Amino acid sequence: MADTYDLIVLGGGTGGYSTALRAAQLGMHVALVEKDKVGGTCLHWGCIPTKAFLQAAEVAEHAQKSDEFGVRATFEAVEMAAVLEYKKGIVDANHKGLQMTLKARGVETIAGTGHLSDHATVTVRTDEGERTLRANRGVVLATGSVPRQLPIEGAETDGERVIDSDHALYLDYVPNRPVIIGAGAIGVEFASVWNAFGSEQVTLIEALDGVVPNEDVDTQKELGKQLKRRGMTAHTGAKVNAVEKGQDGVRVTFEGAKGEETVEGDVLMVAIGRRPITEGLGYEEAGVRLDRGFVQIDEYARTGPEGLYAVGDILPPYTLGLAHSSFQEGFLVAEQAAELPVVPIDYAGVPRVTYSHPEVGSVGYNEQELTERGVAFEKTTYPFSHNGRAMMMKESGHVKVLAVKDGGRVLGVHIVGPKATDLIAEGQLIYNWEALPTEVGQFIHPHPTLSEAVGEAHLAIAGKALHG
Amino acid sequence: MADTYDLIVLGGGTGGYSTALRAAQLGMHVALVEKDKVGGTCLHWGCIPTKAFLQAAEVAEHAQKSDEFGVRATFEAVEMAAVLEYKKGIVDANHKGLQMTLKARGVETIAGTGHLSDHATVTVRTDEGERTLRANRGVVLATGSVPRQLPIEGAETDGERVIDSDHALYLDYVPNRPVIIGAGAIGVEFASVWNAFGSEQVTLIEALDGVVPNEDVDTQKELGKQLKRRGMTAHTGAKVNAVEKGQDGVRVTFEGAKGEETVEGDVLMVAIGRRPITEGLGYEEAGVRLDRGFVQIDEYARTGPEGLYAVGDILPPYTLGLAHSSFQEGFLVAEQAAELPVVPIDYAGVPRVTYSHPEVGSVGYNEQELTERGVAFEKTTYPFSHNGRAMMMKESGHVKVLAVKDGGRVLGVHIVGPKATDLIAEGQLIYNWEALPTEVGQFIHPHPTLSEAVGEAHLAIAGKALHG
Repeated sequence: MADTYDLIVLGGGTGGYSTALRAAQLGMHVALVEKDKVGGTCLHWGCIPTKAFLQAAEVAEHAQKSDEFGVRATFEAVEMAAVLEYKKGIVDANHKGLQMTLKARGVETIAGTGHLSDHATVTVRTDEGERTLRANRGVVLATGSVPRQLPIEGAETDGERVIDSDHALYLDYVPNRPVIIGAGAIGVEFASVWNAFGSEQVTLIEALDGVVPNEDVDTQKELGKQLKRRGMTAHTGAKVNAVEKGQDGVRVTFEGAKGEETVEGDVLMVAIGRRPITEGLGYEEAGVRLDRGFVQIDEYARTGPEGLYAVGDILPPYTLGLAHSSFQEGFLVAEQAAELPVVPIDYAGVPRVTYSHPEVGSVGYNEQELTERGVAFEKTTYPFSHNGRAMMMKESGHVKVLAVKDGGRVLGVHIVGPKATDLIAEGQLIYNWEALPTEVGQFIHPHPTLSEAVGEAHLAIAGKALHG
Repeated sequence: MADTYDLIVLGGGTGGYSTALRAAQLGMHVALVEKDKVGGTCLHWGCIPTKAFLQAAEVAEHAQKSDEFGVRATFEAVEMAAVLEYKKGIVDANHKGLQMTLKARGVETIAGTGHLSDHATVTVRTDEGERTLRANRGVVLATGSVPRQLPIEGAETDGERVIDSDHALYLDYVPNRPVIIGAGAIGVEFASVWNAFGSEQVTLIEALDGVVPNEDVDTQKELGKQLKRRGMTAHTGAKVNAVEKGQDGVRVTFEGAKGEETVEGDVLMVAIGRRPITEGLGYEEAGVRLDRGFVQIDEYARTGPEGLYAVGDILPPYTLGLAHSSFQEGFLVAEQAAELPVVPIDYAGVPRVTYSHPEVGSVGYNEQELTERGVAFEKTTYPFSHNGRAMMMKESGHVKVLAVKDGGRVLGVHIVGPKATDLIAEGQLIYNWEALPTEVGQFIHPHPTLSEAVGEAHLAIAGKALHG
């Protein structure tokens, strides 16, 4: 006998739980199937724990540089056991809060491994046996992703010499000479953490031509420069040829700008992206289209037969694979299932944030994309070195704004610098509300704040720069 | 023989220099008369130097609490000489930058004391003698303000026992038991600084019913609670009756909730606001209307006979007396003088920022104002205790949103908590663009950021709360 729900969600990560929460809010009877812990990668292995590390890194850097601000303090060390404890406290509190919210909204969380039997039926293997769930309004696939492995002999992760971000979050020491393959968000975040935590040498190896290669070209250059200034080394346009594990370390050989080079380190971290979990779950049998493992969707996050939806990291890369893009997908799906009017997600309007030091935040299109598409645009870059608040923080970077030529709408806001991840919130409204630079420039930002740099960049592109 | 300019600006603070810069940008020949240093109160005695103190305070607090983040560091002391040096470096760099910008734009800065001879003529006493300047398009009054004195015997500032913010910025020691009269922005900022710098006891005395009394009632309560938790004492609804200076300290007697009380301290800081500088400058003789010292203007910042404008701290309190409200006034005046179309400033839309710890940022109307005006509104408050990023920072507070009842436009955004001064930038666009909560809620904020709390508050008021 099957248990019947309005909506069944397979996977309790950000995409899954946001769908479930919104659907329950809209009055639906919802089952959320999760084999491990609700909160998924983001809460347990991603956004939340890594940012706890980065907060500890900021505290460590302040202590290291305290004399520049007139403060006499001595930095001794980062105690990894204590950092892990601090991180665990944050993760546990968030996990508990999420469980309470799910319960309060009446979502039935089912602990077990789900399998799609047909487009409206999910079978769950639980500790008590197997349950069959039937959905009246839809089944939502939200089974997430795992770190991608490097397809090179010797580079298989072992959790000791060769690790991925999952392992890195539980390392009980600060690696002295970590080598990181991949300089995307995860790579540069761990590089920044270990650099602040006291690693002697941090090396990044990136196949594409710059660090954070999906970002605007000027962001790539500025972040690259600042990582270097902090003592890190980034090899870009570098193809890894071989990985050799030894007793005390690893050797990575790559083909770079200067020919073949070798770097040695005590730990190798593979940070080349994430792989969707979509195999062996009955997806294809139920009519779900997969392409290289990713679930193919239409602009309403629908896939396969009617009533099947997919959200989160199992979607193709254009959906960004970010916690907050999955939140937005969750809302889209839940509201559809409730027969509310919905609009497709403009993924260009989803902000991207990287918690490197300095941080990166961006929304809309970057210069390369606009050039590629043949859009007639204009641009302006305002440096944080002209911003009083950033000067006080001894931080630098810039805000770059791209807009349709001759006074048209803002097409992209790209920030690299202090608190970029919070400053981009304003950029998100500017891009998504299709604002003109003059409409932003009409309002003067509070002084003295970092956000003035966003204001100045828009004032400049509107032809009325205030300072500088 | 008079020198002729398009525009003459009397006073080189934020209001004056922004008028001059924008006017020059629009092709005008501009004279900027300044008796001391361009940059005025904000750059030399206000926004900039105080925020350098607050940055040093943040560094000191991080060192003090480093163990909570897993970092082993020892806080020893704040070296006031080094803090003053750091502050001077920031002020000097900004001062130099401003002078260069003025020069680059072709503004003629005239060092001397100006006097309004008639509505279109300014006389300047310089080191080389007197000059007479004639304006074709207008004269802009921007002579600023000084700290207000407490009209009580014994409370006259002497720079040692009884000080104001000008003195406080040059104090070469950390007062042990400072007493601060006035818990507005300046009062709570210095209270936060000294508390972080190691004062044993910080006491605030405020005549109105809460700290930051111009802010939303819930902001007042939350900040009051947090100041107390950090060990400060705030007496509100307290009327100062007497101030007695002794050899080693001051005694302040006030009438508070518990009757007459006395507090003792080593220094008394008077922070009860600022007084406009408008006397003896020929203003009234030239036809400028003054009311209790403030220059009266129409909604286009015009005053007295045609071609006379006023900006900045000499305007009545409803114009906020903030650096960025004066920037906006400067733009308004310069663009009028250039015969560009302009719109009056909606002062409710000018964000207010207070760099206390935690920070305060707000825009639009507060709950008391809406109640007083009989507006039908709804409200929601999202606590930072539910925000992952704030939890990592071990910070608390809230975002409160007020909107027209039943789905109408956002009327106010009130933030008290970490980085509120930067987060309010988004609120500024939301308020000024007259957005609906649903229009904000359509876009999910980046995760995990502090700005999510702003998003969640709007989602909640739109009836679609995500977390919590």
